[in-house]
Amino acid sequence: MARAPANRKIDHPPPGALPQGRGNKPTPSDPATESTSTPPPAGADRRRVAIESVTPEVDFGRFPAKRSLGEQVVVEADVFADGHDALASVLRYRHQSSSEWTETPMTALVNDRWRGRFSVTQLGRYAYTVEGWVDPFKTWNKQLAKRIEANQDVKPDLEIGARLVESAAKRAQGEDATKLAALAQALRKQGVAMPASQGEQLETLMDRHADRSLATTYGRELEVVVDPERARFGAWYELFPRSAGKPGAHGTFRDVEQRLPYVSGMGFDILYLPPIHPIGRTHRKGRNNSVRAAAGDPGSPWAIGSELGGHKSVNPDLGTLEDFRRFVRVSGEHGLAVALDIAFQGSPDHPYVREHPEWFKHRPDGTIQFAENPPKKYEDIVPFDFETESWRELWQELLSVVQFWIEQGVRIFRVDNPHTKPFPFWEWLIGEVKRGQPDVIFLAEAFTRPRVMNRLAKLGFSQSYTYFTWRNSAWEIVQYFTELSRPPVADFMRPNLWPNTPDILNDYLQTGGRPAFAARFMLAATLGASYGIYGPAFELGEARPRETGSEEYLDSEKYQLRNWKLDSPDNLRELITLVNKIRRENPALQTDRTLRFHQTENEWLVAYTKSTEDLNDVVLTVVNVDPRRAQAGMVTLPLEELGLPRDRAYQAHELLTGARYVWNGARNYVEINPSSAPGQIFRLRRQIRSEHDFEYFL
Amino acid sequence: MARAPANRKIDHPPPGALPQGRGNKPTPSDPATESTSTPPPAGADRRRVAIESVTPEVDFGRFPAKRSLGEQVVVEADVFADGHDALASVLRYRHQSSSEWTETPMTALVNDRWRGRFSVTQLGRYAYTVEGWVDPFKTWNKQLAKRIEANQDVKPDLEIGARLVESAAKRAQGEDATKLAALAQALRKQGVAMPASQGEQLETLMDRHADRSLATTYGRELEVVVDPERARFGAWYELFPRSAGKPGAHGTFRDVEQRLPYVSGMGFDILYLPPIHPIGRTHRKGRNNSVRAAAGDPGSPWAIGSELGGHKSVNPDLGTLEDFRRFVRVSGEHGLAVALDIAFQGSPDHPYVREHPEWFKHRPDGTIQFAENPPKKYEDIVPFDFETESWRELWQELLSVVQFWIEQGVRIFRVDNPHTKPFPFWEWLIGEVKRGQPDVIFLAEAFTRPRVMNRLAKLGFSQSYTYFTWRNSAWEIVQYFTELSRPPVADFMRPNLWPNTPDILNDYLQTGGRPAFAARFMLAATLGASYGIYGPAFELGEARPRETGSEEYLDSEKYQLRNWKLDSPDNLRELITLVNKIRRENPALQTDRTLRFHQTENEWLVAYTKSTEDLNDVVLTVVNVDPRRAQAGMVTLPLEELGLPRDRAYQAHELLTGARYVWNGARNYVEINPSSAPGQIFRLRRQIRSEHDFEYFL
Repeated sequence: MARAPANRKIDHPPPGALPQGRGNKPTPSDPATESTSTPPPAGADRRRVAIESVTPEVDFGRFPAKRSLGEQVVVEADVFADGHDALASVLRYRHQSSSEWTETPMTALVNDRWRGRFSVTQLGRYAYTVEGWVDPFKTWNKQLAKRIEANQDVKPDLEIGARLVESAAKRAQGEDATKLAALAQALRKQGVAMPASQGEQLETLMDRHADRSLATTYGRELEVVVDPERARFGAWYELFPRSAGKPGAHGTFRDVEQRLPYVSGMGFDILYLPPIHPIGRTHRKGRNNSVRAAAGDPGSPWAIGSELGGHKSVNPDLGTLEDFRRFVRVSGEHGLAVALDIAFQGSPDHPYVREHPEWFKHRPDGTIQFAENPPKKYEDIVPFDFETESWRELWQELLSVVQFWIEQGVRIFRVDNPHTKPFPFWEWLIGEVKRGQPDVIFLAEAFTRPRVMNRLAKLGFSQSYTYFTWRNSAWEIVQYFTELSRPPVADFMRPNLWPNTPDILNDYLQTGGRPAFAARFMLAATLGASYGIYGPAFELGEARPRETGSEEYLDSEKYQLRNWKLDSPDNLRELITLVNKIRRENPALQTDRTLRFHQTENEWLVAYTKSTEDLNDVVLTVVNVDPRRAQAGMVTLPLEELGLPRDRAYQAHELLTGARYVWNGARNYVEINPSSAPGQIFRLRRQIRSEHDFEYFL
Repeated sequence: MARAPANRKIDHPPPGALPQGRGNKPTPSDPATESTSTPPPAGADRRRVAIESVTPEVDFGRFPAKRSLGEQVVVEADVFADGHDALASVLRYRHQSSSEWTETPMTALVNDRWRGRFSVTQLGRYAYTVEGWVDPFKTWNKQLAKRIEANQDVKPDLEIGARLVESAAKRAQGEDATKLAALAQALRKQGVAMPASQGEQLETLMDRHADRSLATTYGRELEVVVDPERARFGAWYELFPRSAGKPGAHGTFRDVEQRLPYVSGMGFDILYLPPIHPIGRTHRKGRNNSVRAAAGDPGSPWAIGSELGGHKSVNPDLGTLEDFRRFVRVSGEHGLAVALDIAFQGSPDHPYVREHPEWFKHRPDGTIQFAENPPKKYEDIVPFDFETESWRELWQELLSVVQFWIEQGVRIFRVDNPHTKPFPFWEWLIGEVKRGQPDVIFLAEAFTRPRVMNRLAKLGFSQSYTYFTWRNSAWEIVQYFTELSRPPVADFMRPNLWPNTPDILNDYLQTGGRPAFAARFMLAATLGASYGIYGPAFELGEARPRETGSEEYLDSEKYQLRNWKLDSPDNLRELITLVNKIRRENPALQTDRTLRFHQTENEWLVAYTKSTEDLNDVVLTVVNVDPRRAQAGMVTLPLEELGLPRDRAYQAHELLTGARYVWNGARNYVEINPSSAPGQIFRLRRQIRSEHDFEYFL
């Protein structure tokens, strides 16, 4: 019946700073309605509507939810009152840059749940909250229909309705007031004989001028932080510039420029470099993490700082700062955004050690405290003392490091070991950066305990590494990604899936051969809207661990140069290129929010769909996690939820091979042989015309 | 290693009013540590510990959790920091009457979860919160052990430890300071050769004088409201005094006094009376809800008020106010607490209608608005207008009604239709009453939608009617009571289970005969620590509906007197007496918090246990919900969780018949024939001596 008013701006000022805390505790009552004859009941209030369980809401509004540009924020809430009166509810939102709220109606679902939505079209933060009120006119309207149906005399009710309309006329101004006054008279005179068009006008005007003096506003203003699309969707490629040179020579930014066509040709979006700063000499690590470096060993890039400079300097072996700026520009011309590594630690030779000894811990003998995890010692690294009495100066300096690289054109940072620095430090630093540059993206290398990983995501990291690397069975994948793709986690954490990193070559890859690499790649690229590989080790199938039982690479680039044979016939670049193309062409694969797993009746097959909200793009991926044998199973799909027909055929278009299958019903056969490809990616197309022409499948 | 300090009082003042809102947002940093050389990073703070997901916490602390006198409040929280340093955490609590907090240590479970507990020994509200800090001494201690094990030189570490101890000595005073200073020296000199007793003393003292300057306190002070035991555990009996007289005569309080031995003899704790006030004459309802009353028809007790008085008067047909006070006293002598009905509505003859027309809605013709649910009309009832401009006077008057009956000795109120009065009204009214009389109990007759039912419980009702009445299959019972017995619902709602009420004679009872009544009784009395029946209709198996498809009783006492034949051979009093005795003897049945369902391999059999925390009392109930046929099944018990032996026999002592069975293992056979008893109640006793003497089963 009621037609929702279109979104409209309202010009009353926001009720307060965001967020406000406290829940919908009774607020001081409206002074306009206060009686003076008896003392008011302490703390009481007539507002009848309760608002509970608003989603998204991260830790009672302590942290913002996350969305990317252009996405929708679907807000739900329990909005209800005593009794059976009709309610109305609106969602209010505003961008941080505006003090003006926009209002959009919420719609009742079932069980007192209401839903509204708004699109986020600006970077930065939006505030939103929910308001609800008892609507006597809607109640009257609903009851009137029942009275008429029961053939009751509705004359007194028409008079009651007319008075409600007259009250609204007093609240309205100008034309609306005049119209409402006239409609009140029409109600009295014509009553149920009022033309439908006039009835509709009446409802619209009554909605617009509803009596909201006793409306309840949800006690908190919630926030959503809006990041660039790249925070949601992107393919990352990590490489060590040191290995991009001629065999035996230390690679430079110029050398990496030669590698850009190779990387962008595979369809990657982000090129991530380990730290590019001068490397310490004291206790420098040699090949395979040996405690003594040989002459010419380049050392670990994470042992940052030497007499040549610290976090704001470039390792001269890679080039100059000018070379780096040029490299960022040229990468951009190849469609690649450069991501830098933020590793807040130093080598014992870092200039900070000399200039700011107060930023480090010292041992009783006066020596600086190196990194350790007793009994293990990491003598090439000195950690900052984030709790130092000089913490303010230290923190400001570290912020200036990020800002320095932003000035050089970098917008994406991969943060090393964020879980060993204080939470408030990151919340402050990311907040400061994004206040001025809301387009900056921070990826947390949070390989740590679940609560810590979640906290880092909540406090501001745009993306997070995950446990994907160690989830290799179908069962583990279903469990873990079901958790990641649903609220509450999905509201604050965006996973970025890496089958390998320079630190992690896991057992599955060590033992599974090329099919294992291909399977893990397909999983990463289709389970995760964001994923990455550490190459060329990955696409070349480098599988040799430093020693049995270790996840470290043999001859790791962390400690030495490597000469990669990119033209190897085993290079997975063809598969990678194809899958990245499929990702770009299918918006379904560009979000994690719609991920759903499906039964396969085979414990080695994992099957899942992603889809766009309009279901015009539905992608089913099936991966065989057994790298040794072909596996077959029956995949059961929830047809209705995927917009597929129950009563006629639809098409399963396999995008890697181009093969098109006609499927019928919910349960269909899939067989996957890892020796050809470890997975299949189907676009599921419903038939939109009756002719048997495949092109008519949408 | 660390020995937790015993609970101790701390004398620093509470950090603020309760509750505070906002979550653990960084608080302004400690002025003592502020540097003045550079401006502090805005909003930042060095406190490293995060505290999340505290339980119990109802709607972010907006509402208190509920416990009864003597219960424990088990508080859990995620307490964690960056890195791997050792943490310490305490639970702080205080009764509302005290500004002094008591502290008790929390213990780490798994996955950064911590747990602490306190007992509630006073009625009213307690506040509690959680505090956590990084503990350098614990970290040092943990690392020292690893260094020693790895045979490292720990001399520098002993010096570091000694300095930590010296810092603590400065924070301590008196004897502790002296001891700590000495221990620092001992650490330097004796090091790892320090005697164990001295090491223990050191740990205790270091715990007591931990550096908490950078401790994080959870951002909210949460509350728990403590009610009398009777709010948790009690058997209710509802009767209409009007039917307690000689056949044909209107019963009086004196007549009900004669009935007290019958009611208390069955083991009931609470005697609940429908409204006892004068009944209106205008539009008085006749027998079977007829719209016209015949001469002598007593009318519905819920049509309150006549020229003889309103909510503070007694219906003269029942006696005088003095009679009522005597009745309350005599009931008490029989071990029965009297519960009154609070029905905030009037008949058209209520004195308020004349004295306070502004408390009611009026129709355009000036007549008072009676109750209706269009197209249905209830012309014998006029509702209050809780939103009237004179709401303050109205609310105060209604509060005074409750206070009036409290003055007459009543402490328990069953509230009629609370879901048709505003939430803020109840929150205010119950808050006002319990501020002065924290022993008062309110039972909400909240037969309404789930969100509304929950809200009423959250805002202060001590107990709530439930959907139990309509959950008759084993599957429904398992689903519903699993939800009710677990957080979040169990933290704020106490169910009170009624198989029938004067308004509800459901289909299961109408059609199932005596076994149905017996089954529903056993379910109510063993699923619910609180339950009630409307008698004598219930125990006499009154099953005639007013008409087919109706849940109303034929010849309902709501509109007429009834003459009940208490000596009928079908009277269930023997079963009721026995079950109430079992409830009193088994503390396991006096709580809902431990309810657990178990597989029966038969869809007609529902099996569940309740137990005391120490597992000294474990009660298994199995009910056959098929009132027509015997059903058998295998009950599977989680032996370990119930403290039962896996490797030897235990005893299942059936408490209704006294039969004792020797059971082995998790899976045991049960057969239940509804024609004898529809259920069995087993006390499960583990064997505590090896002799085969049943008396040695605990």
